[in-house]
Amino acid sequence: MPATPAWPPNTLPRLFVDQPLAQDQHLTLDGPAVNYLGTVLRLKPGAQLKLFDDRTGEWLADIVNTERRHVTLAVTRHLKPRETVPDLWLLAAPVKKGRIDWLMEKACELGVARIVPVLTQRTIVDRLNRDRLHAHLVEAAEQCGRTALPELAELTRLDVVLKSWPADRQLLFADETGGISLALAARPGPAAILIGPEGGFTDAERDAIRALDPATAITLGPRILRADTAMAAAVALWMAQIGDWR
Amino acid sequence: MPATPAWPPNTLPRLFVDQPLAQDQHLTLDGPAVNYLGTVLRLKPGAQLKLFDDRTGEWLADIVNTERRHVTLAVTRHLKPRETVPDLWLLAAPVKKGRIDWLMEKACELGVARIVPVLTQRTIVDRLNRDRLHAHLVEAAEQCGRTALPELAELTRLDVVLKSWPADRQLLFADETGGISLALAARPGPAAILIGPEGGFTDAERDAIRALDPATAITLGPRILRADTAMAAAVALWMAQIGDWR
Repeated sequence: MPATPAWPPNTLPRLFVDQPLAQDQHLTLDGPAVNYLGTVLRLKPGAQLKLFDDRTGEWLADIVNTERRHVTLAVTRHLKPRETVPDLWLLAAPVKKGRIDWLMEKACELGVARIVPVLTQRTIVDRLNRDRLHAHLVEAAEQCGRTALPELAELTRLDVVLKSWPADRQLLFADETGGISLALAARPGPAAILIGPEGGFTDAERDAIRALDPATAITLGPRILRADTAMAAAVALWMAQIGDWR
Repeated sequence: MPATPAWPPNTLPRLFVDQPLAQDQHLTLDGPAVNYLGTVLRLKPGAQLKLFDDRTGEWLADIVNTERRHVTLAVTRHLKPRETVPDLWLLAAPVKKGRIDWLMEKACELGVARIVPVLTQRTIVDRLNRDRLHAHLVEAAEQCGRTALPELAELTRLDVVLKSWPADRQLLFADETGGISLALAARPGPAAILIGPEGGFTDAERDAIRALDPATAITLGPRILRADTAMAAAVALWMAQIGDWR
């Protein structure tokens, strides 16, 4: 049992470990995990937690030993295989720090399979701290129960992304100049949601997107949504209609 | 024309003023608006902006004069009447600072009419900085084009809210123990979305909610969503199906 009585019932701490897990395996963790398990959660030897590795699924583990710089765990039981996440990509122009951290967290929780940061003509941010973004994805996956991490692609120019767009993947793009509702636009199968930068797409970009056969312009209502809000709304609508929320 | 060429095309700065506006009115602003218009946006006399007052709608105005501590504006044209926001309330247990600020911003952008912070048994935050939350609502309304501010109710205990629940208002509550999809649950007419605290509702709370005739438990998919994520997802789904996103 976890030593943290304030924890919601039936919820064990959950931790991502970047190594393949197997039955009866012992593993020793160092780094931030030690502080999290020992100091934040105050777990003692004998306490249980869940581990997932983005490869084999989710496992139950016991704490064997806690030291100042290391925690030793024993993997005791396979709980579930790695999930198949709905096949939705998120293409989003980077927004400023804080908002992009939040965007990563929410995309992971809502169930996106792959995140592609895209450089558009009006994108203000042109560099990404991938380590920080990855850490947000991991933390969100730990918290929301995912057994598969979202893939984080390299920052890519929008025109490059469009040039090699897969013909079988629907591209739903939030177009502030108008579109149809996602309920009408979305069809079963692989899909991507494209969210522009705060300044919007340029006319040339909009033309290039619309010229793609799998692209459909969608509307998200009469109010002007920030990029992070538009992302959360569009992903939720897709998940409810096509993804695994049904 | 605005003096800020980086501004997205066709978008004028937009400002909430807490006084009734009328044609040809002159008004003098002090406080943060002076810094925003003069220093941040660098607007000069003759520049245009939009004003809304949460009473009469949206107006075009000219900057007449800028001083160190005051900006004088002239109201030149009525652009639109105050909107009728879809009749959706959001009942949410306060979450920690940062997340609740974000929750306010997103609720406003997504189109919520009224926000009721509710105290549940597992709510950790028991006081609200209403001025700060109100400021977030105003800023979001300015940005997203709303002409009506969301109403911010007092922090109220959940049992008190439930005791006087209006019979004609559907109560959609995000129940992590299971429910039906919002697409099946939502019906036209007044509605509210209830989001619990991070620790979830207690069994007693869940029973009290379910006992209400207008209450329906909804699910938001297989992943455990944070309160702010659940709010954004549920509001977007309701807006797309019942609200003004159709």
